Amino acid sequence: MADERKLQSEISNLKSAIPPVADLGFAQVDLQRHQRCGFPEVIFSEGKSCAHLEGVVSQLHSAGQDCLATRVNDEQAAHLERCFPEAEQDRIGRTFWLPAVEQSQRTAAGKVAIVTAGTADLPVAHEALATARAMGCEASLLADVGVAGIHRLFRNLDKLKDADAVVVVAGMEGALPSVVGGLVDCPVVAVPTSVGYGASFQGLAALLCMLNCCAANVTVVNIDAGFKGGYVAGLIARRRHSDNVKG
Amino acid sequence: MADERKLQSEISNLKSAIPPVADLGFAQVDLQRHQRCGFPEVIFSEGKSCAHLEGVVSQLHSAGQDCLATRVNDEQAAHLERCFPEAEQDRIGRTFWLPAVEQSQRTAAGKVAIVTAGTADLPVAHEALATARAMGCEASLLADVGVAGIHRLFRNLDKLKDADAVVVVAGMEGALPSVVGGLVDCPVVAVPTSVGYGASFQGLAALLCMLNCCAANVTVVNIDAGFKGGYVAGLIARRRHSDNVKG
Amino acid sequence: MADERKLQSEISNLKSAIPPVADLGFAQVDLQRHQRCGFPEVIFSEGKSCAHLEGVVSQLHSAGQDCLATRVNDEQAAHLERCFPEAEQDRIGRTFWLPAVEQSQRTAAGKVAIVTAGTADLPVAHEALATARAMGCEASLLADVGVAGIHRLFRNLDKLKDADAVVVVAGMEGALPSVVGGLVDCPVVAVPTSVGYGASFQGLAALLCMLNCCAANVTVVNIDAGFKGGYVAGLIARRRHSDNVKG
Amino acid sequence: MADERKLQSEISNLKSAIPPVADLGFAQVDLQRHQRCGFPEVIFSEGKSCAHLEGVVSQLHSAGQDCLATRVNDEQAAHLERCFPEAEQDRIGRTFWLPAVEQSQRTAAGKVAIVTAGTADLPVAHEALATARAMGCEASLLADVGVAGIHRLFRNLDKLKDADAVVVVAGMEGALPSVVGGLVDCPVVAVPTSVGYGASFQGLAALLCMLNCCAANVTVVNIDAGFKGGYVAGLIARRRHSDNVKG
Amino acid sequence: MADERKLQSEISNLKSAIPPVADLGFAQVDLQRHQRCGFPEVIFSEGKSCAHLEGVVSQLHSAGQDCLATRVNDEQAAHLERCFPEAEQDRIGRTFWLPAVEQSQRTAAGKVAIVTAGTADLPVAHEALATARAMGCEASLLADVGVAGIHRLFRNLDKLKDADAVVVVAGMEGALPSVVGGLVDCPVVAVPTSVGYGASFQGLAALLCMLNCCAANVTVVNIDAGFKGGYVAGLIARRRHSDNVKG
Amino acid sequence: MADERKLQSEISNLKSAIPPVADLGFAQVDLQRHQRCGFPEVIFSEGKSCAHLEGVVSQLHSAGQDCLATRVNDEQAAHLERCFPEAEQDRIGRTFWLPAVEQSQRTAAGKVAIVTAGTADLPVAHEALATARAMGCEASLLADVGVAGIHRLFRNLDKLKDADAVVVVAGMEGALPSVVGGLVDCPVVAVPTSVGYGASFQGLAALLCMLNCCAANVTVVNIDAGFKGGYVAGLIARRRHSDNVKG
Amino acid sequence: MADERKLQSEISNLKSAIPPVADLGFAQVDLQRHQRCGFPEVIFSEGKSCAHLEGVVSQLHSAGQDCLATRVNDEQAAHLERCFPEAEQDRIGRTFWLPAVEQSQRTAAGKVAIVTAGTADLPVAHEALATARAMGCEASLLADVGVAGIHRLFRNLDKLKDADAVVVVAGMEGALPSVVGGLVDCPVVAVPTSVGYGASFQGLAALLCMLNCCAANVTVVNIDAGFKGGYVAGLIARRRHSDNVKG
Amino acid sequence: MADERKLQSEISNLKSAIPPVADLGFAQVDLQRHQRCGFPEVIFSEGKSCAHLEGVVSQLHSAGQDCLATRVNDEQAAHLERCFPEAEQDRIGRTFWLPAVEQSQRTAAGKVAIVTAGTADLPVAHEALATARAMGCEASLLADVGVAGIHRLFRNLDKLKDADAVVVVAGMEGALPSVVGGLVDCPVVAVPTSVGYGASFQGLAALLCMLNCCAANVTVVNIDAGFKGGYVAGLIARRRHSDNVKG
Repeated sequence: MADERKLQSEISNLKSAIPPVADLGFAQVDLQRHQRCGFPEVIFSEGKSCAHLEGVVSQLHSAGQDCLATRVNDEQAAHLERCFPEAEQDRIGRTFWLPAVEQSQRTAAGKVAIVTAGTADLPVAHEALATARAMGCEASLLADVGVAGIHRLFRNLDKLKDADAVVVVAGMEGALPSVVGGLVDCPVVAVPTSVGYGASFQGLAALLCMLNCCAANVTVVNIDAGFKGGYVAGLIARRRHSDNVKG
Repeated sequence: MADERKLQSEISNLKSAIPPVADLGFAQVDLQRHQRCGFPEVIFSEGKSCAHLEGVVSQLHSAGQDCLATRVNDEQAAHLERCFPEAEQDRIGRTFWLPAVEQSQRTAAGKVAIVTAGTADLPVAHEALATARAMGCEASLLADVGVAGIHRLFRNLDKLKDADAVVVVAGMEGALPSVVGGLVDCPVVAVPTSVGYGASFQGLAALLCMLNCCAANVTVVNIDAGFKGGYVAGLIARRRHSDNVKG
Repeated sequence: MADERKLQSEISNLKSAIPPVADLGFAQVDLQRHQRCGFPEVIFSEGKSCAHLEGVVSQLHSAGQDCLATRVNDEQAAHLERCFPEAEQDRIGRTFWLPAVEQSQRTAAGKVAIVTAGTADLPVAHEALATARAMGCEASLLADVGVAGIHRLFRNLDKLKDADAVVVVAGMEGALPSVVGGLVDCPVVAVPTSVGYGASFQGLAALLCMLNCCAANVTVVNIDAGFKGGYVAGLIARRRHSDNVKG
Repeated sequence: MADERKLQSEISNLKSAIPPVADLGFAQVDLQRHQRCGFPEVIFSEGKSCAHLEGVVSQLHSAGQDCLATRVNDEQAAHLERCFPEAEQDRIGRTFWLPAVEQSQRTAAGKVAIVTAGTADLPVAHEALATARAMGCEASLLADVGVAGIHRLFRNLDKLKDADAVVVVAGMEGALPSVVGGLVDCPVVAVPTSVGYGASFQGLAALLCMLNCCAANVTVVNIDAGFKGGYVAGLIARRRHSDNVKG
Repeated sequence: MADERKLQSEISNLKSAIPPVADLGFAQVDLQRHQRCGFPEVIFSEGKSCAHLEGVVSQLHSAGQDCLATRVNDEQAAHLERCFPEAEQDRIGRTFWLPAVEQSQRTAAGKVAIVTAGTADLPVAHEALATARAMGCEASLLADVGVAGIHRLFRNLDKLKDADAVVVVAGMEGALPSVVGGLVDCPVVAVPTSVGYGASFQGLAALLCMLNCCAANVTVVNIDAGFKGGYVAGLIARRRHSDNVKG
Repeated sequence: MADERKLQSEISNLKSAIPPVADLGFAQVDLQRHQRCGFPEVIFSEGKSCAHLEGVVSQLHSAGQDCLATRVNDEQAAHLERCFPEAEQDRIGRTFWLPAVEQSQRTAAGKVAIVTAGTADLPVAHEALATARAMGCEASLLADVGVAGIHRLFRNLDKLKDADAVVVVAGMEGALPSVVGGLVDCPVVAVPTSVGYGASFQGLAALLCMLNCCAANVTVVNIDAGFKGGYVAGLIARRRHSDNVKG
Repeated sequence: MADERKLQSEISNLKSAIPPVADLGFAQVDLQRHQRCGFPEVIFSEGKSCAHLEGVVSQLHSAGQDCLATRVNDEQAAHLERCFPEAEQDRIGRTFWLPAVEQSQRTAAGKVAIVTAGTADLPVAHEALATARAMGCEASLLADVGVAGIHRLFRNLDKLKDADAVVVVAGMEGALPSVVGGLVDCPVVAVPTSVGYGASFQGLAALLCMLNCCAANVTVVNIDAGFKGGYVAGLIARRRHSDNVKG
Repeated sequence: MADERKLQSEISNLKSAIPPVADLGFAQVDLQRHQRCGFPEVIFSEGKSCAHLEGVVSQLHSAGQDCLATRVNDEQAAHLERCFPEAEQDRIGRTFWLPAVEQSQRTAAGKVAIVTAGTADLPVAHEALATARAMGCEASLLADVGVAGIHRLFRNLDKLKDADAVVVVAGMEGALPSVVGGLVDCPVVAVPTSVGYGASFQGLAALLCMLNCCAANVTVVNIDAGFKGGYVAGLIARRRHSDNVKG
């Protein structure tokens, strides 16, 4: 009997799930993602033509959904600028952000702090920043406080202690999350970057360092995955402050 | 001026930080960890003699702190059983748990769901389970629902949808977090395990799979790091339900 | 005596084998491949000059054989277009297909379904598609049904259940073959792609994931090897429907 | 409408899928696998206690299903011998085979040839052999015909030319599938083994060699995965000879 | 006493060694290499300016030594063509060869056979060819006889059986040396090439395959190291036919 | 009490540390580095715009500090040449050096010898050279004395025996530090370079070779890290000759 | 016509090739290897039972062939000692040598010098030594002359200069072949060993070092492959001194 | 002329070098190492029999040299204890130390500080400690001050600031040297350890982290190479305080 009820519930889920897929031929846009996962589908722009990119953005926007695109290159950015002049673009972080009309007055829910070890980590950090803000969080950036001059971090500890989640972006040896993790009481999402040379092996060294982090509150995402860092931190932060995050 | 004030605050922090280190010679037990990070220092038992392990447990316990130890082998377990018969040991997950006296009536804050792909992932899952419970969360286990028979997962979706954080434990190809991530709206902590053979390379395949996960809400910890998976999930879950988690 | 007879048979084989090699100086075109392996030699165009490529195509075509070329770049495609205007070219999959005259009325034997996880996997999928069709199979394409939105796959399960063989093309984490493998009763050929970034290591993550696949019916080919995926699936599919596939 | 009908069909599938899961606590035995995938769930014995192993075997057997177990160690084999004296065990391949009663008179459907490069590859080859036979195929073994004495292969070519699928098992450099692939017209499943030393890196060298195989008809499975090699070859072989393989 | 004599001999060696170093500032040309090692210093042209390259060639030539340069790019080739019009350049193998005047009538000593698996391996094979000829050997080239069409090799076995040393050049899976090694009684030098894609990892797959070669007479050099393959084969071949190879 | 005093001392340290950070927005220039570590912050120019680079140089210079920049590309070099015509630039080593006014009459303290295996290692060696000189050491360069013509090294042993520290720069097999290490009584800093091809894997081979060096006095830095090699050698050399190196 | 003649010759080869295979069930002993490759099949003992090992030895011996076995463990050695007391066993190199009766008075043809970097490399060196002697060469051993004390090598240069081929056995950094290669005029076979720890990665560091060796006369075999090192050196050495090495 | 004089000097060097090699058959003990490199040959005990180990120790001791042995296992330790009861053994660091008689009254020259991240790093740290002391330095140990509780390091900064060289021993993520390097003005030798699990890959993660260290004064040695860390630090430290360190 319990199985039967589970099945019925699952069937309902499936039923409501099927309509909102928009089949564009080259892509199947998941219009139910926001309802299921708490945020609409995000567009990874690499390898998409300007026309395709415009198509997906239009589809999401006309469906009344927030639209975030990442890894937008210069040509794509110019094209989107012409099509959607009201959208906000961060050219350091290579992000595009076109919020749904009805969500424009929302108030920030939760605080995300984004920290970088060096200046060269800024593009990845900006991607995280734009993502966390798109999720409705108050997000701040603290740059160039790597471990070789650790007093620069200590000067800014208060900012981190306020956060509901911290994103630490670091290339080279990737040691900063270990230090930050030991100083705060919230989850830390470590984002290794491909900044470095030689035995950094395009970010592998930083990735391994972060995976072996002694601090218990540190998890890791893919190399240069600023989006994912900001997304998970955003999920954590707003979860705390909202009982009703789903659409 | 602002710098001056930050410095004063930092000095206060440092001052309060210094006394609670208990120097045992072979280890410096950090008695302020709970205050700073929200949970006391956890003991990694590998490579410790029974006497040393007993020493650290005693130190933490007599300081009125919860005491969790992981990777407790058979000999250590028997020794600790004799010394601390009131403690709870999970021999599948190889954990030891001795809560502080004054914390025995606490109520669960937040829900953590732990999912495994196969039966062989159970020891790592149990480590996560014991950790999440030690952090004060209500934690449940759903075993053997790997992707090759995906309907087993769908039958149990409701359990996952309740959770504040999900820990997915998987070896072999490590594909389960990608599927789970797309079905829930909370953060997913993926724990790759060394279960497998040949090109699993002791968990490397599962680790890489999880790091490249398309689902935006999935972060990763070290191979076989059940403790860390449970810890971060616990941090997320209880954060939502409590404004006052620090001692 | 048995050995003697085997030797005689082998000598016959060798004798018939030797004439059909066309020595073009820069290449030795194997004109007996169709007879021996069931399909003529296929041309890998990378690194070949337009003149060389034209030479090999002409050689195969004038010998009355089907001619399939893969990895045809833009310059080569334009050259071949001028020389063989009757041929069919797929510029997404970068394939060239010039069937032998006498084989133009053949009917499809066997069904191959080709599935991709994302839009960026399309070029590899098209290579598989063109190959399976060149082998005489009915081949269909189902794109962008990756595991992070698994309901998109379930909507199309019927198509897969019809197939004699399924080719699953996926980059990033490469998890899709594990799910598909558990839902069908025919062999699945998994093709990892180099789509991804960071810890995808140009397709290594997807490759390892697929090699460790729990589903028993999944085998793997090289990264981006759409041709091989389509070829093996084609061999399997038409084998079922034909007792007389050799020339 | 079409979507609606697909959904109904999917619901039916799900409904029939749910009952046959046998939840043993430590494992969820998928009793519908044969119906869905053409063969019952196969037991991977590594890491299972004798009691658990016996439990799963009993469950499958009492449900009237064929029961194949792989990687059965000496202790498990002795235990199963006592419980199921009528079962067939291959101690070289470490397999256990207990066919369902009603399937005992079946006739072989399809031919699988299993070839090894060296004597040390025999355990993996036997696992493939037992699997292919369990699937109802006629399976033969040709051992020790590696490429350094290639005439040994040529003496036995006729056997391979009869096969519907060939499994090639090789360690060290793993070159044998490339040669075999160029001599037959059926699919070849290459199984790399961990046989070797030094730069074989526990089978990595053979695995990479096979993945880069020039012969178009060769696919690859995991290192030492004799079971999977035999399984896929069996699927291919019997598919050709049977229109009604599902239960 | 014996030590004393060894020392005296060593001092003599060192004394004669020191004068022939020509210090050009950017390079120290070893003019004694021919006497010590049997062949003059060979110039690796990568990263050298045209002026530097010309300088080293002039230095060797004016010292009456044979001058071989490898990895000569188009710009360098044009420059050297103007400076040394009498030299022989192979633009496929990217080699430059300017023999010393007094050695122009030498007769070939020893036979080297160079074999390639595919057409794309030709540049590396030509480098080996030019090197073996520069060493005074009779060198022949047999191209495109890879293992997937092994009868192409068998047609040409006689050529290989004549050789004093065989160089086998192969990319992709790198399996050809294993077959050749089992068919000849002379040393085989295997040269892996970076030809391939995906899991060839720029020649790593072929390199590992060759290092694990079962045939006892196969040794390996670096990826794409046609020069070294030709050099060692040349050393072996001419050694057999000459008792007095040193200047 | 002792703890209290340590804290006071640490507070003093922190206090003096905080003012000298110059926050430029895109970077936090550590103006206390010279006092704390014995040398000012060095600028890694990769990825910095000309304006940013100029900004940091100006900041350091106006603060009365020595200014060393590494990895200066052609465009940056031209820009800096216009802004700071009095600075010294080494275009082979890609370094920029602008000493503080008051330090211009300093005398060399300690000797550093820099040795390269080949001509192609010169850029990395020049970076080391400029760094060691910037640190106030007398630094010499000995090029192209690799192990394949080891007598070239022996001719110059006296130069090495004078040194307080030796930097050995080598690509390809990276064997030179092992030989040098066994011939001198001072520390040797080994710098692997990315010079090589094929199995050098961009310097990995040289790096591993140097890490496994049998000579006890050899330590290693990152691939192509000429700066770090020169820096550590400079620290060692001047330490011996000066009791008062801090500002 | 030429093809026809080649075919006839090949048929003759094949015919003579087929009879001498002795099929023992578990192995196919190649009795024609000596005729084809210049030395009988050599037995790799790892993984063979004592009975199987005895069987192959007996088969080769009774066929009048020299019998060399490598990697003979203690149990196998004791068994073979009882069966073939007249054989020669080297327990350091783990070799077994039972020459054919009629070849007992042969005279040494060619000189092989075997050199090791350290004492721990001796087992691999002894395997090479026994192999070279089995091939009829005069072989000498020079141990513990690694590069960190390079004068130990120079004291013994005369021995190396006599050799027709040199085998250099080295673990750790594997630098010795580079130095030796630059001092002799014959081919050098480099054998990396798994001696070392940490970043030696079981011989990978030495292997990569040797593959990148600057000395032109150095080729490489697998890690710990003393047999192959001795075999190739033996082939080279005796080739020089004999025009009639085949049976 | 200058060359001539260099040669004479080199000849003198070689002459004095040759006598002090003690050839024990299984090893060539370099009795001149102390004179050439500043410290006698150190014995790596792994793989040596007790008799051999005793032999080398006796040889060095009777030649009036200090004798340090590392990696002494329990059996070797007991044997050496019986033979040389006056020697000092550190069973945590597995070292053996038997100073020469005439050097017993020496005074410490230079200070070495050894720091560990965790308790499990102690064996490696003790090896460094014993080595630095054997070299005549005053060496101190500071344990368990890893980055996850960074205040433990700050409490002890004064100890580090006194040092002439710091050895930092760390496993897991290996981040400690980056922090320490930014706080001191002397060279830091980083020793990665194999402490950790999963993605630590036996110390690879820590090694890569340290090689990519941003702090300019950090160099690296092999994984677990406590001896080398202590040796280089000792060389640096005593060099500063002594102008006459050679015998």
